[in-house]
Amino acid sequence: MKIGIIGTGIVGQTIGSKLIEVGKDVMYGTRDVTKTLARTEPDAYGNPPFSEWKEQHPKAKLGTFQEAASHGEIVINATTGVASLTALTLAGQENLHGKILIDIANPLDFSQKFPPLLAVCNTDSLGEQIQNAFPEVKVVKTLNTVNCYVMVNPEALPGDHNVFVSGNDADAKAQVSRMLIDCFGWKQENLIDLGDITTSRGTEMLLPIWVRLYGAMQHPNFNFHIVVGPKPRM
Amino acid sequence: MKIGIIGTGIVGQTIGSKLIEVGKDVMYGTRDVTKTLARTEPDAYGNPPFSEWKEQHPKAKLGTFQEAASHGEIVINATTGVASLTALTLAGQENLHGKILIDIANPLDFSQKFPPLLAVCNTDSLGEQIQNAFPEVKVVKTLNTVNCYVMVNPEALPGDHNVFVSGNDADAKAQVSRMLIDCFGWKQENLIDLGDITTSRGTEMLLPIWVRLYGAMQHPNFNFHIVVGPKPRM
Repeated sequence: MKIGIIGTGIVGQTIGSKLIEVGKDVMYGTRDVTKTLARTEPDAYGNPPFSEWKEQHPKAKLGTFQEAASHGEIVINATTGVASLTALTLAGQENLHGKILIDIANPLDFSQKFPPLLAVCNTDSLGEQIQNAFPEVKVVKTLNTVNCYVMVNPEALPGDHNVFVSGNDADAKAQVSRMLIDCFGWKQENLIDLGDITTSRGTEMLLPIWVRLYGAMQHPNFNFHIVVGPKPRM
Repeated sequence: MKIGIIGTGIVGQTIGSKLIEVGKDVMYGTRDVTKTLARTEPDAYGNPPFSEWKEQHPKAKLGTFQEAASHGEIVINATTGVASLTALTLAGQENLHGKILIDIANPLDFSQKFPPLLAVCNTDSLGEQIQNAFPEVKVVKTLNTVNCYVMVNPEALPGDHNVFVSGNDADAKAQVSRMLIDCFGWKQENLIDLGDITTSRGTEMLLPIWVRLYGAMQHPNFNFHIVVGPKPRM
């Protein structure tokens, strides 16, 4: 299966490594291919540049946003949330039309430094903004509540913990759920379908506590497990 | 120990029942004592009125907001979040001065029906608004991420699950943590101190996903457990 990944940062790299490992044909999309390959300095968190990562992953293809969107039967939005709509607009309605778009981004706004704020929340979400801007695309919001390492290594945390799925199209959610299980190793019983794309508000608004838990734990290898008791007698 | 509970709804009743059971001297505060006692109809969720509950809990005292705040060595805000600042202002700075105020409310705005929005979020929180309005009060935000039944019956859910504590005063957080453990049955190791009162943003912003999980589960007996893996090698 052909996958297009919009964004070449650490999240896209981590997701893509796993997809290549399980045999998917992955093309990355970036604004300017020459510039992306010319970059030699690490990112703000010390992660190596895409060019260095690509040398270690020769099967990974690189193209423009348009080329990656056109390549993918399924497209993954792995851009910084505040840049997602711009990147997807450059990728082009015509290249995304009718496809499943997995949105794993969060609208984190670091302009006020720490803690980051959300650029959109409460009455709207990035997931909804993307769905509204691309009505012919089947947007499925998922994986945005965990660090990228946990996204593709759920077994690295002990016991059960959950990943949420939001979207308007039941078949698209089923296909993405299959990918979470078969490619990334999530257990079927730990997937929670929250409902339509408006439920993205809930998962994106988990980020403020996620960031504070990161501060309390001093590392990002954690996740939420929804512990359920017996239904109360009414 | 004397406890003042601001608010006579189901959350205050549930918390107060447990505090009375463990021997605390509890006084409820309401805007108009006569009106509260005269009410005979159930609330919007079908819970019996305070007067009926009080007959079954004869040790519970009832007074004005001011009287309950004055009575309490520790005061609990169990009002509807959008009414909290008004109720606490009526309770009076002088009656709250220097005391611990446990804020268990959420700023849920039901004016747009379902799902409720947050009346404040992202750049501010109800916890912070209360702390700013009452600088001489030691505000500790906690318990607001679980249903009131779970607040005082954490053992009703299987295994470990967490309660968060936010506040500026370390000693106040320690005293409230003691109450969570000794009165309500929370396990020490399941308390997470998130930091200062600004971390209330994180716990209050859990409500949008809480509400959707309630929809998915069809009952409110659940909670979040933070599952932590090993610290990654950097």
